[in-house]
Amino acid sequence: MKECDLIISAPWLLPIAPQNIALRDHAIAISHGEIIAVDTAESVLKNFKAQDVVELSHHILLPGLINAHGHAAMTLLRGAGEDQSLQSWLTDTIWPIEGRLMSREFVALGTELAIAEMLKSGTTTFSDMYFFPDTVAQTASAIGIRAQVAFPVIEIPSVWSDGVTDGLHKGLALFDEYRHHQLVSIAFGPHAAYTVKPENLQQVAMYANELDAQVQIHLHENAAEVADGHQQNGKTWIQLLHDVGLLSDNLQAVHMTHVTEADQQLIVDTHTKVVHCPTSNMKLASGYCDVSAWLDREVAVGLGTDGAASNNSLDLFRELRLAALMAKHQQQDPSRGAAAHMLHTATLGGAQVLSIADHTGSVEVGKQADVIAVSTAALDMLPLHDPFAALVHGDAGRHVTDVFVKGIPLLRNGKFNTIDTVTLAARVESWHSAHF
Amino acid sequence: MKECDLIISAPWLLPIAPQNIALRDHAIAISHGEIIAVDTAESVLKNFKAQDVVELSHHILLPGLINAHGHAAMTLLRGAGEDQSLQSWLTDTIWPIEGRLMSREFVALGTELAIAEMLKSGTTTFSDMYFFPDTVAQTASAIGIRAQVAFPVIEIPSVWSDGVTDGLHKGLALFDEYRHHQLVSIAFGPHAAYTVKPENLQQVAMYANELDAQVQIHLHENAAEVADGHQQNGKTWIQLLHDVGLLSDNLQAVHMTHVTEADQQLIVDTHTKVVHCPTSNMKLASGYCDVSAWLDREVAVGLGTDGAASNNSLDLFRELRLAALMAKHQQQDPSRGAAAHMLHTATLGGAQVLSIADHTGSVEVGKQADVIAVSTAALDMLPLHDPFAALVHGDAGRHVTDVFVKGIPLLRNGKFNTIDTVTLAARVESWHSAHF
Repeated sequence: MKECDLIISAPWLLPIAPQNIALRDHAIAISHGEIIAVDTAESVLKNFKAQDVVELSHHILLPGLINAHGHAAMTLLRGAGEDQSLQSWLTDTIWPIEGRLMSREFVALGTELAIAEMLKSGTTTFSDMYFFPDTVAQTASAIGIRAQVAFPVIEIPSVWSDGVTDGLHKGLALFDEYRHHQLVSIAFGPHAAYTVKPENLQQVAMYANELDAQVQIHLHENAAEVADGHQQNGKTWIQLLHDVGLLSDNLQAVHMTHVTEADQQLIVDTHTKVVHCPTSNMKLASGYCDVSAWLDREVAVGLGTDGAASNNSLDLFRELRLAALMAKHQQQDPSRGAAAHMLHTATLGGAQVLSIADHTGSVEVGKQADVIAVSTAALDMLPLHDPFAALVHGDAGRHVTDVFVKGIPLLRNGKFNTIDTVTLAARVESWHSAHF
Repeated sequence: MKECDLIISAPWLLPIAPQNIALRDHAIAISHGEIIAVDTAESVLKNFKAQDVVELSHHILLPGLINAHGHAAMTLLRGAGEDQSLQSWLTDTIWPIEGRLMSREFVALGTELAIAEMLKSGTTTFSDMYFFPDTVAQTASAIGIRAQVAFPVIEIPSVWSDGVTDGLHKGLALFDEYRHHQLVSIAFGPHAAYTVKPENLQQVAMYANELDAQVQIHLHENAAEVADGHQQNGKTWIQLLHDVGLLSDNLQAVHMTHVTEADQQLIVDTHTKVVHCPTSNMKLASGYCDVSAWLDREVAVGLGTDGAASNNSLDLFRELRLAALMAKHQQQDPSRGAAAHMLHTATLGGAQVLSIADHTGSVEVGKQADVIAVSTAALDMLPLHDPFAALVHGDAGRHVTDVFVKGIPLLRNGKFNTIDTVTLAARVESWHSAHF
């Protein structure tokens, strides 16, 4: 018998790769954070001797979800400024509050709250783009969740940076600091094509190319932005990004509504990746990111919650359901947005978008053990005709019981190991009552 | 001090009538199932002496939700036949399973499962339309939830009835039996305009008119149905229902997609009521029920989950969120689908649709005490900037702790009083493994 650290078994395992497969009574063996075997529970228990064996009786095991776009600390603004137009929401609510309250402490508290909510609902990797990215990186690392932290690059000075040059300077130092980190990677986060000058976008492209670093950008979020692009530049923002050298397999383009056929082809040809944020797009009435079209063209697609201020939840399972329903609705075809395809975007698709699919996003031998368990014992999950449907169309996020990142249990039986949630809740409530 | 049975207090109370009001630190006094006072907690505790006082520390109190359309027993088919076209879903999956397994026992078990799920997520009244309506009525009455049971009227013979005449005969007897019941009312449930002959629809209209009974019907569910109507009758199904005398303030029209301007006017003029089932419509790619247009014209609008086979959840809070997001998306206006308006459809709007608004749907003196409490203590509800947004856009259904129907506690602190959920889950699992 081979030794290992941990064995997890359950009645159902959805490895995601290969796609569309549901395995019965399987187990995973884990050693030094890595998956070393995926086989029937009987075989794994016969061939491996583990320090810890987690035998789950009513659960679906699957890779942890990957939240490919968000602004974690904005959990503190959850529910602030509802039902407003995008412009009034930003100028009358979000920006004034951020201007008044933004600080390193705001980001530390809001990010911890966000990570707790994400872990509890089965997310093991998140991407972030916000002020004080060094604090976000530290918080993620301390808790033990996997993260891509995109540092902001924007012309407008903020409490974190004086503008593009300062932002790039600080961001590059952060990039160096985390170059060999096991969980956290640093990416460039140019805010949008309309908030960073073309010459500065070009500089980002140059650096990213040199460092083989990832770049995440808000792109074609709504019709007004797209119309402005035409008016200001005589071309779309997508074409402008192509001109400055940003479209590539290192670019993660977030939102991507109102995209022409020609621009779709540019995305396909350059292997640019797409992040779909259905709730945020609907809540702000931004338009629709045509997931089915991207998947048909084999573009890598991930799912994101965006910030809690425009969602108001960071439960990626809820996003998954909405993405599936919207694909059917928009295509007027109930066979689109199939559960297995959607689940792929929330796991391996997200990993491909963040360029971490070599080590996470699926349950395969050789990958890191980023694994979650969803209980199907609750009445709202019964009977279990179809585990894919249960995860996508049931309210699976509320039934996540166990979360492992790199084989480390961050949530066991619904209890956090690395977050003191009682104190966290009290800190959030006292922050709120102090400021509102 | 006046005597009463029960006082419930909480930091937030949303009475729904008057609309858009959130009261701080209020309490409700209840006597013989009726709300006898709504005031500040201080005042209620000073003026009333109750046998039972429920003081909730982190909760929003509101009227119980009203699920205005569904097929409760179809919970047993949750997740069966996913991602299929409507026709293939019905003919290849649902109808064959129903044909093979439909029985009084199926309906009893599936309805109990559905009621448990609905209560747990804050629904205190549901409307049903399915085989063996007498069993549905008995099950609801035994558990103590409020229900409108629409007995099926359809040409096709089933295990419950031989056709329209037999269905009407059995349904009228049931109507008499429950005429004075405190929780359950019986309605006519002609399945659809295309599955009941015009002369039989006319007969339903005549009976309903004579008895002042409610009628619920699937109407304009999708484009194909609407096109067929034109082809078969040279007019829309809505016009046909008008011709046979069914459009009235006793009619509850479910789905209502693809409606022309002229037909909208007919609905307005006849005070016909509308039930919106956003998940089902999206999942089956049926089209969109334009809630904003109906509300602008002061048509009574309720929300429904439809059956779990096309949802797959009976949590009306999830429906509420989707309705809000879809209103914004379809109207391309983020100020539409405002949280307070949507919450109205899930409570008082639903009561208006079912014609029970004189005694439920809001927290007002003189109404029955159908009240629920949602905890806001969980991390995904923090901080609480806006209680309406927390209920509509947060995942409130998972945080329902207490449910009272007519002042009777059916759920207290998350525990059921009238359902043995352990046995229920075991019965559902053994049913499932026996048949699949």
